[in-house]
Amino acid sequence: MSVVSAGNWSALVEDDLSQMTRSLMSLVGAKHPVLHAAAEHLFNAGGKRIRPALVLLASRATVAGGEPSERHRRLAEITEMIHTASLLHDDVIDTSEVRRGIETVNARFGNRVAMLAGDYLFGLSSVLLARLGSLEVVELLGEVISHFGEGELLQSTIQFDPELTFEQYLDKSFYKTASLMAGTSRAAAVLSGSPAVVCDALYEYGRHLGIAFQVIDDLLDFTGSTAQLGKPAGSDLQDGNLTAPVLYALEEAPHLGVLIERQFDEPGDLEKAMSMVFASRGIERTRELAQQHAREALTNLDALPASPAREALADLVDYILGRLH
Amino acid sequence: MSVVSAGNWSALVEDDLSQMTRSLMSLVGAKHPVLHAAAEHLFNAGGKRIRPALVLLASRATVAGGEPSERHRRLAEITEMIHTASLLHDDVIDTSEVRRGIETVNARFGNRVAMLAGDYLFGLSSVLLARLGSLEVVELLGEVISHFGEGELLQSTIQFDPELTFEQYLDKSFYKTASLMAGTSRAAAVLSGSPAVVCDALYEYGRHLGIAFQVIDDLLDFTGSTAQLGKPAGSDLQDGNLTAPVLYALEEAPHLGVLIERQFDEPGDLEKAMSMVFASRGIERTRELAQQHAREALTNLDALPASPAREALADLVDYILGRLH
Repeated sequence: MSVVSAGNWSALVEDDLSQMTRSLMSLVGAKHPVLHAAAEHLFNAGGKRIRPALVLLASRATVAGGEPSERHRRLAEITEMIHTASLLHDDVIDTSEVRRGIETVNARFGNRVAMLAGDYLFGLSSVLLARLGSLEVVELLGEVISHFGEGELLQSTIQFDPELTFEQYLDKSFYKTASLMAGTSRAAAVLSGSPAVVCDALYEYGRHLGIAFQVIDDLLDFTGSTAQLGKPAGSDLQDGNLTAPVLYALEEAPHLGVLIERQFDEPGDLEKAMSMVFASRGIERTRELAQQHAREALTNLDALPASPAREALADLVDYILGRLH
Repeated sequence: MSVVSAGNWSALVEDDLSQMTRSLMSLVGAKHPVLHAAAEHLFNAGGKRIRPALVLLASRATVAGGEPSERHRRLAEITEMIHTASLLHDDVIDTSEVRRGIETVNARFGNRVAMLAGDYLFGLSSVLLARLGSLEVVELLGEVISHFGEGELLQSTIQFDPELTFEQYLDKSFYKTASLMAGTSRAAAVLSGSPAVVCDALYEYGRHLGIAFQVIDDLLDFTGSTAQLGKPAGSDLQDGNLTAPVLYALEEAPHLGVLIERQFDEPGDLEKAMSMVFASRGIERTRELAQQHAREALTNLDALPASPAREALADLVDYILGRLH
């Protein structure tokens, strides 16, 4: 896998993102020393900020004049807050100790602070959302938040279940990853006062981009190195989290289902299961699935007027696909 | 302490509350078997439902005709959802195993489910809030949610700190308890289209009622029996959670501060500290503090037109104070 640069997609919003980080620090950190420390830890932790960048690009692609309004900038901040809150809670649930190469908030400040900081961010995002003045946007982002919970709950009930359908897998991917990209992209267009056809197209763009993103993440869990992933390859399978490569492999190798059902409890089970996935067309078909959603994302951009921001949104698709190589 | 009956305050909204429970079950439980089980466990768990009752009474006291609208009923459901979400998270944070005499969701279904169900309820409540069609109400309830996190964070930084000021103690009580009662009472009046003076009065009524409620809770932690409290008396003090009786006692017995600062780590420290609180005027002054806030709550009701619901709101204050005896 070659190292992929951040690419052109981010150049247009680099200044916007720096401004956002400063604004988030003063919004979140102002009230409380623990939150200040957690915020510093979180919002300076690098990460590619794909989600707020997407909001800012969708804003630039739809607003008259191409310059995001103050409300668009707030929406990007709220998006990063909601995403951060969900990561805080995910890391508590999964007892993760490292994210993006640094200690998690739960590892550094304890579960209590991580959980409360997440709740605080959800609440603050509601307050700021209301101030944007659009009930449609409030509802869109409320759906995103409830989808996080639904996705994690769905995941917990389908662990180690070889009867998992492809539809359930895609639902889970939507809830956990794509819903936020879809809902916030649409919200940017709503704030721009865009016609319905543009709002719908940006929702579909975000949804397909998000699913492609998640599918590629699931693929990398098989093909990436420990150094790239920050965890050993095959972690998802070991946890009983069945993803696209496994679901495809199950079609060719029904015995894989037996190993999954017994939760790999006999020696060599996990290794055998990994070999079955690699021996199948699962990896190849998963790559095709990601490419198909990437194409669908690009097609939806046709509904937008030509602009540098629309080009950047297309580049973002390429960047996401670039992780495949 | 005599057993206090639910009193007249609840008669007016009994049917409303039964209807609410059915509605919550179908709203929350419809999508997911785990949520269904958790919802059944939560929303049928008894409890006096003071918070949604307060919303329904504030609705009846302000709406023309005295009959809550569908939007008022939704607001009561949202209030119960937000309160329940905060309890779910509190029980995870405090590793509580029993609430209202039954197993907590974290004890029965695990921390993961409890946390996610809380997040899901926060998200769902945002969606439902948006559909009420009032940005003012969205903002009011967003503030309530962010206050929960702030209150808990504030509490965690002032543990075992005898320098805690009375103002900080009241702030914490507002964030953790009174903000919800204040914000949702006001929201009911906003949905009724009440004049500002009525909206403000209901906010102040809810705020003073909530502070009285929390102060009495803090007092009962000293004067209640294990059977009443579901935990040994003095638990707050032992946890370093300094409340009104202790803050008053500290004025008379500065040595109490030494015991607190060393976190009761010498044998007999906690017993000595309890005696100091009981020997001081702390218990009596705390009772007076609760009564003072109760009086303030009642005074604010004068801004409302006379109605059976206004009478019930006054009875609710008496009911809360009744816990003192």
